[in-house]
Amino acid sequence: MAIITITTDFGLRDGYVGVMKGVIWGINQDVEIVDITQLIPPQDINLGGIALQRVVPYFPDNTIHLAVIDPGVGTNRRAMAAKIGSQYFVGPDNGLFTRVIHNGDESKKEIKFVELNKPQYWLKEISHVFHGRDIFSPAAAHLASGISIDEIGTPFSDPILMTLPEVYLFEDKILGEVVSIDNFGNLATNIMQEHLDKYNRKFFIKIDDHKITDFVTTFGDKAKGSLVGLMGTQKDLLIACVNSNAHSMLGGSVGVGTKVEIVFEKR
Amino acid sequence: MAIITITTDFGLRDGYVGVMKGVIWGINQDVEIVDITQLIPPQDINLGGIALQRVVPYFPDNTIHLAVIDPGVGTNRRAMAAKIGSQYFVGPDNGLFTRVIHNGDESKKEIKFVELNKPQYWLKEISHVFHGRDIFSPAAAHLASGISIDEIGTPFSDPILMTLPEVYLFEDKILGEVVSIDNFGNLATNIMQEHLDKYNRKFFIKIDDHKITDFVTTFGDKAKGSLVGLMGTQKDLLIACVNSNAHSMLGGSVGVGTKVEIVFEKR
Amino acid sequence: MAIITITTDFGLRDGYVGVMKGVIWGINQDVEIVDITQLIPPQDINLGGIALQRVVPYFPDNTIHLAVIDPGVGTNRRAMAAKIGSQYFVGPDNGLFTRVIHNGDESKKEIKFVELNKPQYWLKEISHVFHGRDIFSPAAAHLASGISIDEIGTPFSDPILMTLPEVYLFEDKILGEVVSIDNFGNLATNIMQEHLDKYNRKFFIKIDDHKITDFVTTFGDKAKGSLVGLMGTQKDLLIACVNSNAHSMLGGSVGVGTKVEIVFEKR
Repeated sequence: MAIITITTDFGLRDGYVGVMKGVIWGINQDVEIVDITQLIPPQDINLGGIALQRVVPYFPDNTIHLAVIDPGVGTNRRAMAAKIGSQYFVGPDNGLFTRVIHNGDESKKEIKFVELNKPQYWLKEISHVFHGRDIFSPAAAHLASGISIDEIGTPFSDPILMTLPEVYLFEDKILGEVVSIDNFGNLATNIMQEHLDKYNRKFFIKIDDHKITDFVTTFGDKAKGSLVGLMGTQKDLLIACVNSNAHSMLGGSVGVGTKVEIVFEKR
Repeated sequence: MAIITITTDFGLRDGYVGVMKGVIWGINQDVEIVDITQLIPPQDINLGGIALQRVVPYFPDNTIHLAVIDPGVGTNRRAMAAKIGSQYFVGPDNGLFTRVIHNGDESKKEIKFVELNKPQYWLKEISHVFHGRDIFSPAAAHLASGISIDEIGTPFSDPILMTLPEVYLFEDKILGEVVSIDNFGNLATNIMQEHLDKYNRKFFIKIDDHKITDFVTTFGDKAKGSLVGLMGTQKDLLIACVNSNAHSMLGGSVGVGTKVEIVFEKR
Repeated sequence: MAIITITTDFGLRDGYVGVMKGVIWGINQDVEIVDITQLIPPQDINLGGIALQRVVPYFPDNTIHLAVIDPGVGTNRRAMAAKIGSQYFVGPDNGLFTRVIHNGDESKKEIKFVELNKPQYWLKEISHVFHGRDIFSPAAAHLASGISIDEIGTPFSDPILMTLPEVYLFEDKILGEVVSIDNFGNLATNIMQEHLDKYNRKFFIKIDDHKITDFVTTFGDKAKGSLVGLMGTQKDLLIACVNSNAHSMLGGSVGVGTKVEIVFEKR
């Protein structure tokens, strides 16, 4: 049984993702389809890429990740599939796969890209506005049926990549930023366990005009309502508020892109 | 493996749709169940019918579409199943299936209706308030198990049909209306490609006090923020705002039912 | 084919539930996974328990219910699995399973609890913040693969139980409370059909400063906008507003915990 995951900004109300599932099962019924999220804010390629990279390490070999956040649908942006290690990715070539490509590179996985330019693997009729239905879902279904990545498209080597936010390591300071905010209002940053491990000193966290001195192991280590730093689900530094919502607490001026500093005590 | 789709106004928070899935699998575990949408606004039979007809053409033969938007649950409204071409529909007889019946008629499909009046195909205990659980889910599961449409109920020929909004074709003008607004804020109208094809002249679009002169092939053809007309996922005229939300932009006075005019240049 | 249901407060936007599904299928691909709800308000163990007990009676034997509303993740709260009758439950030992344990007790089902303390049934690496991924999903997958409840953990007998709201039966009055409010704005109470059956007299319902005299069989029995009482999907007294939203109508001072009185006419 093949697995296809779906990540889009289509929302859950209109049935568009249902259409995609119908198309997939119309081609190959022996597929388990799973929603990663359809609630990416419209056109937010960055958050789509973050949700996708969160799930990838936990899916089995041969999983096909179908991701469609596609403001350029119907223009000359490429339709693409990628094989990264033993998993597959299908969607628009617009930067959405930047993080999974980056992670694949970092872990020295074999990576291949193909342009989805073979109409025999599409629906018969192609709209200008819904390639999720017309091109990407059929391609994913055909991959699930055993069509190889080499067969399904034409190789290329220059996918569009977003610039990912950098982490800067100074002598007594790490400078990073908020990269996403989750359902609980936890702020995830691009500062990782491995960055902190390079220092071996006490620190506090600075975000906006807040100074967070409690760095804890888990939420329950401090009283409800405390603002804390801790390591998140991906060994990324989280800023959280125990049993409450750090994002609401920190106020509207803090969001994705807000700078975060780790200030170490001087040696 | 049979496929059952589910379309309701039950929302995603309370577990009601989970209950229905439990009932289905309690009767037949060899069924793939897929959510079309559970986010139809409460009692909105019109939007439910639109979501349903959006997905139907893309599902394989023998798919069973279970749809429960059912303000008259427990009253004397009929419970029904339909076979339209090679697909099945199960739900209340309250107009919800108007569009799929209409489309089936248009494409000359064979259509059969039965009243679900045989308790052997229901749960043992029937509430007055949740026929989605007690009658419709079991009926769908039994259809998936191979019970025929003739067996599962008693034929009837006069399902409740909603009046669908008309399109009027004048000499120099088409008059239609907004029929739904999607997650992106795109306004879908009942003016179709086939209507435009009958004229062969330049036109502009009028909605509320807005005049839209850009008719494009896809979103990316104009700059971000431009208000455009284009053909949607079902060859229906959409009014959209490039990489933004046309509904928000046009303001609160525009919604489902708002008149839309296509004004052609005079011959 | 085993069935695993998932109930969390993780939301649908971030992909956390997708991660759990990946983990499950990484261990056992022959599992059907179904969302009960991921929209429990953050940390709301009470509402999570209510959603869960709503679905349990309708799922087949051997279903595994994975429920993760887990404010104490990473602290010394136990991770647990339970077998109640012929179904399984996996999640934190924090009161979330109070209602299903209570219902199991009432219907004299055999009940077993084990602490999930055997790392061979977890992911290799355990975070302090996401046991849904690291401990509970693997445990559910292993149960689905045939590992027995006795094997997967160490027996214990004192699970954390919440105090459930009481119903008080007086001579001419029942006193209960609102226990949940659903997507339609219907208020479900802890007053059950069996309570009303003990009296055999006319009554009205009092909630806040509202007196509801219409007790009906189903919504459609009264005109749109009428405030009515009726028996809900679980033979619980609902307060509803016909084709409208009782919660909005009754105003902000009414919510979960609001007292509800059934006032019988004097004998």
